[in-house]
Amino acid sequence: MKNKITSRKENYSKWYNDIVSEAGLAESSDVRGCMVIKPYGFSIWELMKEELDKRFKETGHENAYFPLFVPKSLFEAEEKNAKGFAKECAVVTHYRLKNDPNKNGKLTVDPESKLEEELIVRPTSEAIIWKTYKRWIQSYRDLPILINQWANVVRWEMRTRLFLRTAEFLWQEGHTAHETKEEALNETKLINDIYSDFAENFMAMSVIKGYKSESETFAGAEQTLCIEALMQDGKALQAGTSHFLGQNFAKAFDVKYADKSGKLDYVWATSWGVSTRLMGALIMSHSDDSGLVLPPLLAPIQVIIIPLHKKNENIEEIASKTKELFESLKNNGTRVKIDDRENLSLGFKLSESEVKGIPIRVVIGKKEIDKDMFDIFYRYNFKKKSSDYNSLFDIISSSINSIQTEMVSQSKMRLKNSTYEVDNYDKFKELISTQSGFVIAGWDGTKESEDSIKKETKATIRCIPENLDSNGVKCIFSGKPARFKVIFSKSY
Amino acid sequence: MKNKITSRKENYSKWYNDIVSEAGLAESSDVRGCMVIKPYGFSIWELMKEELDKRFKETGHENAYFPLFVPKSLFEAEEKNAKGFAKECAVVTHYRLKNDPNKNGKLTVDPESKLEEELIVRPTSEAIIWKTYKRWIQSYRDLPILINQWANVVRWEMRTRLFLRTAEFLWQEGHTAHETKEEALNETKLINDIYSDFAENFMAMSVIKGYKSESETFAGAEQTLCIEALMQDGKALQAGTSHFLGQNFAKAFDVKYADKSGKLDYVWATSWGVSTRLMGALIMSHSDDSGLVLPPLLAPIQVIIIPLHKKNENIEEIASKTKELFESLKNNGTRVKIDDRENLSLGFKLSESEVKGIPIRVVIGKKEIDKDMFDIFYRYNFKKKSSDYNSLFDIISSSINSIQTEMVSQSKMRLKNSTYEVDNYDKFKELISTQSGFVIAGWDGTKESEDSIKKETKATIRCIPENLDSNGVKCIFSGKPARFKVIFSKSY
Repeated sequence: MKNKITSRKENYSKWYNDIVSEAGLAESSDVRGCMVIKPYGFSIWELMKEELDKRFKETGHENAYFPLFVPKSLFEAEEKNAKGFAKECAVVTHYRLKNDPNKNGKLTVDPESKLEEELIVRPTSEAIIWKTYKRWIQSYRDLPILINQWANVVRWEMRTRLFLRTAEFLWQEGHTAHETKEEALNETKLINDIYSDFAENFMAMSVIKGYKSESETFAGAEQTLCIEALMQDGKALQAGTSHFLGQNFAKAFDVKYADKSGKLDYVWATSWGVSTRLMGALIMSHSDDSGLVLPPLLAPIQVIIIPLHKKNENIEEIASKTKELFESLKNNGTRVKIDDRENLSLGFKLSESEVKGIPIRVVIGKKEIDKDMFDIFYRYNFKKKSSDYNSLFDIISSSINSIQTEMVSQSKMRLKNSTYEVDNYDKFKELISTQSGFVIAGWDGTKESEDSIKKETKATIRCIPENLDSNGVKCIFSGKPARFKVIFSKSY
Repeated sequence: MKNKITSRKENYSKWYNDIVSEAGLAESSDVRGCMVIKPYGFSIWELMKEELDKRFKETGHENAYFPLFVPKSLFEAEEKNAKGFAKECAVVTHYRLKNDPNKNGKLTVDPESKLEEELIVRPTSEAIIWKTYKRWIQSYRDLPILINQWANVVRWEMRTRLFLRTAEFLWQEGHTAHETKEEALNETKLINDIYSDFAENFMAMSVIKGYKSESETFAGAEQTLCIEALMQDGKALQAGTSHFLGQNFAKAFDVKYADKSGKLDYVWATSWGVSTRLMGALIMSHSDDSGLVLPPLLAPIQVIIIPLHKKNENIEEIASKTKELFESLKNNGTRVKIDDRENLSLGFKLSESEVKGIPIRVVIGKKEIDKDMFDIFYRYNFKKKSSDYNSLFDIISSSINSIQTEMVSQSKMRLKNSTYEVDNYDKFKELISTQSGFVIAGWDGTKESEDSIKKETKATIRCIPENLDSNGVKCIFSGKPARFKVIFSKSY
């Protein structure tokens, strides 16, 4: 397998596409802007789903499923939300095809099947869900509702990139309903903390938590919390958002509950989501010019064993040692695979395992058995550790944990080293123009300054972290007293 | 909780709807024909998914994801398939909404966003997948491809019923590609066997396996294998299908592979699926006039423990015994829950646990503790077993298995007792008109006889089992020599 991956230095964007393609993660489909997620890519997504789903359930959430379509009248009920998505909607207008009278064997839309009311393919499900919650909520006894769904959504993006921005994508969307504002705010924070912990410890992708400025807040929300990750090219990637919706959707759909005294009030809401975009974030967090690099917790294959024999010599011993190691790792819960495909060279197999980012690799051949010395190859740092056969299992098992830990701490270190604090606009512009990472600076809180900075530097406010003291700080742009210290960066 | 369930005798159809509603499984949505799957219903579906997914993976299949939309030109490529679904398609024609100039705050479809080519919301994915496989398959080395996807599909059904027939439903669809006809036929059978084993042993729903007559074969397939279950009202329900597609899709999308000698040939294909329809089958297999009945393997809550105390007496001892039993069951892998909700009567809780079909229930109160005698209540047969506290864990644990086994064998018995073999058309018509179950009879293999029987009795050929000898048998309708012995029944 020849390495067909463009180097990051040569062309970062092409490097990303090459990895998605060569590692077998996804590809463009015959539908504009929609992707095919290939089995290897999908199995990484499945590991993400499994872990997130577990964490949602542990915190009291249940899964459910709501319709793919949103009737236009529901879609437009919450005006800000509708406005935010109206320009990128797939609209179903008919429900039947018929034989094309002009083209034999071809079909055409049957004009008689025109719908009275158009259906929007959900870009997000607040509208259809809050219409449902109206039926479910009468009193405080019906609250809270803590529901999540795993679903596909469609946003008609004009410029798409595999995983990062596609017309259809997969995601989870949580939609909760609460008695009080405080409870809803706590939920918003709880979920953002789950996202952040998952990103940092499971994906080994360090993030900064905070809330969005008004201009970046979700359409229909009062406040949007988010996690922001830093990609290798120094650009930020929004990896998850958790919205405090206030009573906006409850008002749009007239959802009130009676409290213990019988008093009626609108219900408080949150919604939150992460998507297959996380796949893009994962790729750009760890991969190198040789291909994908995966933290062991997200590796569909954590260990690959390649038995190597020539001209039928040592076949049995090699096979039995391979099998024994495989079984003991498998029984220990390791995701392990034997690569005994014939007619493929060792070189091809080694290269493929590197492109696919398999964390640990062991070759078992005559030479290794004769010397009782086996190389354990670590994909993430290209280092090797030697072991006799009897210690292989122990070293591999403990390496799975240590690689994960090491990747987590490397990620923290990288984020720390790529985060700058400045109080000088020239220095600010220099850091932004060289895409050096996150830049902490004062902001006066006005849309004018935010817009001007964006226009001049292409940097946006990624988030407003909660714990940064802005006392005595000045706005990097206007020089006026800063209302917040915020994180600026160019972004995906 | 008052039991609001109509009895089967009074109105079978209403009984079904009442169970779906009262057990909290699903409800109609604001989108015509689309349902909301509620958390309790969805958690049963999740258990089905988990088990099926495991079985698919164990037999070498991988999950992937293909686009929701099928461009019209791809949709119509395989003509039979297209014809089969053309009349029930949701069609996307536009990709943008704009402010309605005539109605303030409302939206309207932007005519300038009309798509050049319409997109069909997938009713099934053969077309988009085989267009993709064309890119993936060049030689025998690329085969077999064994892929499954869990997805939503849309078929614009006019008469819908929750779970049984909805415009949008959830399913898995397997799509495989093979070098030889034999291999594809084996795959079709392997999957039908997985479906049958899952239905019988996991769902405790006995089925008959066989293949469909030509008129009931999937549009675009050469042969359709299926599993047919028998509902309590004596009607059949098709619970899963596995299609041998021959080279039809390979030809429609020009997918050829080079064999070892370099010779080109079209690829052989299968597709197969089960859907949320299985939820309907599950409900109608086991439930009774008190509500849902679940086999323990599909019960989101297998055991419910209800602590019962009055006026604060014995609170601590009751709570500690409840917790101890809960923990030991939970640690043993049992899905167990404590129902300690306040302000709800014991009567309400008992009734609710019956409506929701929780297999095992234990009440822990002062009376039980004083006597050291606890009733273990079995939902499926309404029987009770008494136990002292120390034996509770053991008896409950073993009961989970024994209930499952008992339900499996009851189901087998019921199917056996409701399957009749006749060689007399009057007797045939009587059995069909009284919806007595499956009727085995000879069929001459002609569409004429099949259609006439359907017209006269509403019975259809559910399937042609492989192992029934038709030697010397006559067609129940025409009296001519039978080509097959087949299973007739009215059906959902």
